[in-house]
Amino acid sequence: MPSTKGDVPLISPAQNGLAAENFIHQSMAIIMEDAVKKATDVREKVCEWRSPEQLKELLDLELRDGGESESKILQRCRDAIRYSVKTTHPHFFNQLYAGMEPYSLVASFIVEALKPSLYTYEVAPVFTLMEDAVLRKMIEMIGWEEGGDGIFNAGGSMSNMYAVNLARYHHFPDIKEAGLSAVPRLVMFTSQECHYSISKAAALMGIGTKNVYMVPSDNRASFEQRPCCVYFDVCNTIKRNSLCVCVQGAVPFMVNATAGTTVLGAFDPIQEIADICEKYNLWLHVDACWGGAALMSNKHQHLLKGIHRANSVAWNPHKMLMACLQCSAFLVRDKTNLLQRCHSSSASYLFQQDKFYDVSYDTGDKSVQCSRKPDAFKFWLMWKALGTGELEERVDRALATARSPEYANVCFWYSPPSLRNLPDGPELWKKLHTVAPVVKERMMKKGSMMVGYQPHRDKANFFRMIVISPQASRLDMDFVLDEIHNLGKDL
Amino acid sequence: MPSTKGDVPLISPAQNGLAAENFIHQSMAIIMEDAVKKATDVREKVCEWRSPEQLKELLDLELRDGGESESKILQRCRDAIRYSVKTTHPHFFNQLYAGMEPYSLVASFIVEALKPSLYTYEVAPVFTLMEDAVLRKMIEMIGWEEGGDGIFNAGGSMSNMYAVNLARYHHFPDIKEAGLSAVPRLVMFTSQECHYSISKAAALMGIGTKNVYMVPSDNRASFEQRPCCVYFDVCNTIKRNSLCVCVQGAVPFMVNATAGTTVLGAFDPIQEIADICEKYNLWLHVDACWGGAALMSNKHQHLLKGIHRANSVAWNPHKMLMACLQCSAFLVRDKTNLLQRCHSSSASYLFQQDKFYDVSYDTGDKSVQCSRKPDAFKFWLMWKALGTGELEERVDRALATARSPEYANVCFWYSPPSLRNLPDGPELWKKLHTVAPVVKERMMKKGSMMVGYQPHRDKANFFRMIVISPQASRLDMDFVLDEIHNLGKDL
Repeated sequence: MPSTKGDVPLISPAQNGLAAENFIHQSMAIIMEDAVKKATDVREKVCEWRSPEQLKELLDLELRDGGESESKILQRCRDAIRYSVKTTHPHFFNQLYAGMEPYSLVASFIVEALKPSLYTYEVAPVFTLMEDAVLRKMIEMIGWEEGGDGIFNAGGSMSNMYAVNLARYHHFPDIKEAGLSAVPRLVMFTSQECHYSISKAAALMGIGTKNVYMVPSDNRASFEQRPCCVYFDVCNTIKRNSLCVCVQGAVPFMVNATAGTTVLGAFDPIQEIADICEKYNLWLHVDACWGGAALMSNKHQHLLKGIHRANSVAWNPHKMLMACLQCSAFLVRDKTNLLQRCHSSSASYLFQQDKFYDVSYDTGDKSVQCSRKPDAFKFWLMWKALGTGELEERVDRALATARSPEYANVCFWYSPPSLRNLPDGPELWKKLHTVAPVVKERMMKKGSMMVGYQPHRDKANFFRMIVISPQASRLDMDFVLDEIHNLGKDL
Repeated sequence: MPSTKGDVPLISPAQNGLAAENFIHQSMAIIMEDAVKKATDVREKVCEWRSPEQLKELLDLELRDGGESESKILQRCRDAIRYSVKTTHPHFFNQLYAGMEPYSLVASFIVEALKPSLYTYEVAPVFTLMEDAVLRKMIEMIGWEEGGDGIFNAGGSMSNMYAVNLARYHHFPDIKEAGLSAVPRLVMFTSQECHYSISKAAALMGIGTKNVYMVPSDNRASFEQRPCCVYFDVCNTIKRNSLCVCVQGAVPFMVNATAGTTVLGAFDPIQEIADICEKYNLWLHVDACWGGAALMSNKHQHLLKGIHRANSVAWNPHKMLMACLQCSAFLVRDKTNLLQRCHSSSASYLFQQDKFYDVSYDTGDKSVQCSRKPDAFKFWLMWKALGTGELEERVDRALATARSPEYANVCFWYSPPSLRNLPDGPELWKKLHTVAPVVKERMMKKGSMMVGYQPHRDKANFFRMIVISPQASRLDMDFVLDEIHNLGKDL
């Protein structure tokens, strides 16, 4: 791809189209071979571990004045793939996403090639309509019979942030202009098992993490039997201005319920929490980023019973439903254009009102982002190909394969033979705490699989295995147990 | 890709790998032909306009219980491409991004196939190191000789949000926990030409849009001759607690300077603003999302003179440098881990401290996102291929082609023959205001090119043409003028 030098001859294009196409063509063959076929082949490694120091040398990261030849760049592509973790491999159980979804992948490729951005219908006509279609269908599955609104965005953390902002704006619309200095101290409620993005949102939005009241959870589920009402009683809650006001002078404005917690896969009792929210006029947000997929399944949708009573929902099809990263929806029951009113700034260079088409299709002003990727297309295409029926089967299969008491999160300790006869007590747990990190190190270095671990509240380090991919079968479940034993039996 | 039905046989994979590969392979041929070759061919249309109503019928958007055949899905791929705007076409001048960058595109494809997420080194070793390498090089080009920190994120709006949060946290670290109710009313300064994301950030973060003090601009540049000091004088600013406090009792904490405004392409005088910020101990953020590319050019970097004095910088390589969407960096001069301290929540399921490698490589807790795409790779690969030298030539070429007094933004009115003899006055401008929308409608329906228009302050609708792609030559500049005349000469 020759370029122009010095006094630039502007008369002709400075990019050689044919050479570019040829390069892309060659790269596609590498991607197909290494990043699709080999990456998902159960006989291959999940990762080829290198330490940061080793990898820095292998990759030659430095950016220089001169460019490199195409053959060298192709080799860099191969290396980038080689040393990356294969999250699509059947033995990747490490995060809340996994597996290779061919239709969604193709949709991703199309998006990358076309470079659309979703602010106006004019620039992204196809993807604007597809986003609308997917949101409407998700709203239907939530059970909001009157409809609703929504937006795809850059991840579940951002969806939760949208929820906090909408809840706040709903109760105190003046905050948008006047800021928080114009209102009393605001507080919100969530369980201690919620995702950390709730606290991050509170910090970013000026609410403050200590104004997120963490409701204690029982051992399995997220909220205790009687959710935040317990807390409200403690506060001697009184009603004032249609909102509860705690004695400390703070004003509660929302409750976040979690449908599918990150570590344990627990579901908050949405019905009970909705009762409280209705009684005290609090915004109910359901973080169903992980658990929302159960809405696809007749067998499992009971886990989210009452979700239709929520004011807003976060739901990430890139998790159990396997859409390509990222595919994350924020949905709101409101029909008064709250999302737009809360976030709009009416930039005149994008949202001209004298356009020749119906500008209600220009959805960009609902967003806190400016350029925004058309992530809904990655879900739309696979939904078209599979139908709701096969999406349901996938969820049912994953949960049947996991056979966990809590969704698709399989949480367990591996106890090596040397610990099996120790009496229950601090010494046992102290030793058990050290097992998972060593087994994890060994599985990474061998590259045989990836399963996460963590400590949790008062519990010593345990494995958290997430089962999603239809490529994973019962044989793979057996493999995981055998492999952990092989890697840790000497400990 | 047959699936399992009813009582799911979990013994074997439920996804047919070979069929999936075959589908991806066929799709790649379509993408290559329609979304790469045809999309960038100057003889083809930039868009094939359909109204929302027509397009809804053509696309059959509804999501159903049953799936569709592969051949039907392939046709859906062709249709999605066909009716999408070709932002990579040489005659797309509508946004602050354009053109097809083959190396960056291939990097995007790799990312989509591998599905990495950038929270920990363990899950994204290659891309974690590449992000670090790109950030360090960008920091070098800004001129922060002592180094700095940074993070790629989901767009310039988010970078500006990071800046506001860091500035606030730097002055009032208690806000993270206690919220804004614990501090006086905060105010920030920016020019009235700044991007709308500054106001959106203020709204979202609880500061409030009316606490964003908009400093008047002159006719060309963004800030007036003597930037915010004008405002400070008006406020009878006094110094207290190392921060200026206006008489109204509000506390200024940051100034946003814009390097390359969205509509006019103007650059704020960073040196003068930095003087003020140093004098009053205000955080200086430079929104160089659009103008940052000039740092690559010896000839044009003077536009950003003084940027090394900024506390933070937003810079989007997906704009003039043509990395695939999105590729957006937030950079901060701080060396005390401010980014991490401001945003961390130390989730134990991701950021275990007993890992077997140096966990300082786990950068995810710097982010307000949880899963995050490795966008830096899209810039790293093209930088390796082109070298800094060719990136510089691209910038020089774009600015030479634009020959605009303000960066690559070419802003102009088209006056049809019928208006050319009218005297200057309200009637002329009222008529001129109606010309651009009609010309725009006609160019969209013909599909010959895309150029934006907008009103601006007291100015009637004018065209704003953005010149970026090395595929666009002087012939294409001539084409735009001729075509606007053809489309509008009867008005």
